Amino acid sequence: MLEGIEYSQGEEREDFVGFKIKPKIVVYPKNEEEIVKIVNYARETRTPIVTWGAGTSLSGHLMCDGCILLDMSKYMNKIIEINEIDWYAHVQPGVNLEYLNKELNKKGFFFPPDPASFFLCTVGGATANSSGGMRGVKYGTFRDWVLALKVVLPNGKVIKLGEPLRKNRGGYDLVHLFVGSEGTLGIITEIWLRITPLPRKKIYTVLAYMKSLEDTAETIIELRKRRILPEISEYIDIDVIRALNKNLNAGLKESEGGAFIISVEEDYLDELKDILKEREYIIAEGEEAEKIYSIRAQSAIALRAESKYMFVEDIVVPVSKLIDAIKRLKEIERKYNVRMPVIAHIGDGNLHPNIMLSDTSLAEQIFEEVAKIAIELGGSISGEHGIGYQKAKLLAEQIVSHNGEEVLKIMKGIKDLIDPYDIMNPNKYVELAYKLWEKK
Amino acid sequence: MLEGIEYSQGEEREDFVGFKIKPKIVVYPKNEEEIVKIVNYARETRTPIVTWGAGTSLSGHLMCDGCILLDMSKYMNKIIEINEIDWYAHVQPGVNLEYLNKELNKKGFFFPPDPASFFLCTVGGATANSSGGMRGVKYGTFRDWVLALKVVLPNGKVIKLGEPLRKNRGGYDLVHLFVGSEGTLGIITEIWLRITPLPRKKIYTVLAYMKSLEDTAETIIELRKRRILPEISEYIDIDVIRALNKNLNAGLKESEGGAFIISVEEDYLDELKDILKEREYIIAEGEEAEKIYSIRAQSAIALRAESKYMFVEDIVVPVSKLIDAIKRLKEIERKYNVRMPVIAHIGDGNLHPNIMLSDTSLAEQIFEEVAKIAIELGGSISGEHGIGYQKAKLLAEQIVSHNGEEVLKIMKGIKDLIDPYDIMNPNKYVELAYKLWEKK
Repeated sequence: MLEGIEYSQGEEREDFVGFKIKPKIVVYPKNEEEIVKIVNYARETRTPIVTWGAGTSLSGHLMCDGCILLDMSKYMNKIIEINEIDWYAHVQPGVNLEYLNKELNKKGFFFPPDPASFFLCTVGGATANSSGGMRGVKYGTFRDWVLALKVVLPNGKVIKLGEPLRKNRGGYDLVHLFVGSEGTLGIITEIWLRITPLPRKKIYTVLAYMKSLEDTAETIIELRKRRILPEISEYIDIDVIRALNKNLNAGLKESEGGAFIISVEEDYLDELKDILKEREYIIAEGEEAEKIYSIRAQSAIALRAESKYMFVEDIVVPVSKLIDAIKRLKEIERKYNVRMPVIAHIGDGNLHPNIMLSDTSLAEQIFEEVAKIAIELGGSISGEHGIGYQKAKLLAEQIVSHNGEEVLKIMKGIKDLIDPYDIMNPNKYVELAYKLWEKK
Repeated sequence: MLEGIEYSQGEEREDFVGFKIKPKIVVYPKNEEEIVKIVNYARETRTPIVTWGAGTSLSGHLMCDGCILLDMSKYMNKIIEINEIDWYAHVQPGVNLEYLNKELNKKGFFFPPDPASFFLCTVGGATANSSGGMRGVKYGTFRDWVLALKVVLPNGKVIKLGEPLRKNRGGYDLVHLFVGSEGTLGIITEIWLRITPLPRKKIYTVLAYMKSLEDTAETIIELRKRRILPEISEYIDIDVIRALNKNLNAGLKESEGGAFIISVEEDYLDELKDILKEREYIIAEGEEAEKIYSIRAQSAIALRAESKYMFVEDIVVPVSKLIDAIKRLKEIERKYNVRMPVIAHIGDGNLHPNIMLSDTSLAEQIFEEVAKIAIELGGSISGEHGIGYQKAKLLAEQIVSHNGEEVLKIMKGIKDLIDPYDIMNPNKYVELAYKLWEKK
């Protein structure tokens, strides 16, 4: 059934944080027709399908043992069209996000969501995960920018969801159901993304050395009260700064309180200077600003170079609860005497404490305790990395405590409705959350 | 079962465009608890529930004969909280949109989506319909601004969907499934809306008298090519101008080619003047600009005053297909010799030709022909008014031709999953579309 389709056997892979992928077979489809064949084969043999873009997944989305691994990066990696009148980019899922943005930039456009892995990741992976990034504070995440999708359903039928239009009331919104569905509902084969003109206003990037993470959180609250909307608003602590200096020659000052990186339109600059007045800071633009942005983007890579044991947390709390969350994080750090460097999209309350610990079971325990801070403060266990295998139990807890058991049932009902064969990235995310909750 | 709940019997209503609502009973709930009781009663007696906000519906969403009409406007009309740090407004569904914005403005914020009925409509109605408006060209529609919802499900259980957070990966995105679900999945009892600071930049509104609708479309394409992103970008034709002058003393020039109303940040103004150079225009700001905006918002009311026979179309086409769409509209006008004044959010390809015809069956035929222009040009039969009863058949056609039959089946499957009792605004929208398609 798979004749004519390129494949390899006996190949094992590892994702960015070390989760193991042990496929029965890796297939390299060249087009939608081949993907339909693969899905039909999977359904008939009840073999799980997992889709690989660039392997930058952070929550065990790709883990499998005996699956068909559908590698989109080899052939399904083209830009189909950039439409300069209708303002969309139409792409295949395996296209690299940085490459897409470079092509858009040439025409005066950009695609705002920028996961830190933008130079590695694929648009398909980031769509399936509804990824965020630094610009999220202003521009939101992938779900705010995906207009339409082409999908091969588990039953082998090809559908299109949405239209490449900003406005469309054509039935229930299924586009948003598939964005962030983590490969559990179907195989995305084409994506239409909304694009927007490059900003015309001058943007300045300020790199400020802060007194502490709390000090930075207080600054964020001050910015909110003054109704300043930054382009990006990031924090890295001293531990991350040291890793960046050591492993990537970043040349940052090793200031105990960490660094706050904020970009604003020029109209906001004076007010920002006023807010930051007692801290040491530099103001950058153009290439120098790009360099700061790129250093920040590589923070996780710098940490990863220090240890292969790294549990990447991704909690969100309401901005008004940032100080409480930080206090609770510090308590956990003290209690376990664990190294937990913090990278944060602090402007939208999205914190990434990274648990660096070789004792996996203790790391998992700490990981859960951190996630529970978010649940207790009315936040979310994931802002942008998703659930995958790793956070399914926490997802069940969050949904049951915040949303109600019925919500978990509806989500499971939707999975069963669309994938009754249970072949699409099974036993993860919503499905696993439901199983774990049901067992209780 | 409904004891203690305020109600009236024998009351009949009509929506903005004249669709008839003949409820068995009208209930005026005071809180969520009462709504749960009403839903339980509806389920047990299998009585349809239709929710009323302000009756500004345009596609027969509220039509019923023998339903329970749940009127949210009498008691469930409060702002619960405006959070100036987390940047959200938490409201009850019956709150008036203009009132909400006035309260937000006092604190330096606003909520961008602005259906032309903003001064009449409720937030709940606009959420259920994912309404758009003039600012849609820059800020999108309700679906881009709803963060979280509280809902009473058909089974009587109360759930919360989403969190008042910009970033949240807590399972499948059900918020977007309920936004725009037109009352067919559950009763919305609370809404958390994202809010944003009032713009700091000076904004100018230009009112230009154009050569024609085509001339305006060409101007829009020119703006797109130059990557100018306006705040609003509207068109009204000569027929609408006359109605505004006659019925609302608008004092507009009765120019044959109609009027283009566009607002831009000051940085764009010189370029805009250059594009408009051969047309007569005025530049307004502040109160004068507000007045122009308000005249535009009342266009449909001015037309309605001319005739009670008004079929309001709401097609969207890709901006690159605007000229084709206009040609096709003119052909229909000529073919039937029908009066069809055009109001348009022209900047995003959203056209509202209004069919003014007392011959209902001919009007319906024309209505369908207009909608088919959108289907054939890769657009949508609705940008912001929704489907309701009126457009269900067209919805089936659009989905089957653009998206695939499977999409209609999935939508129907979701309706059955969440409302197996078929009590929530039944026999409209997705459910009716499915029935009509199945019968063929």
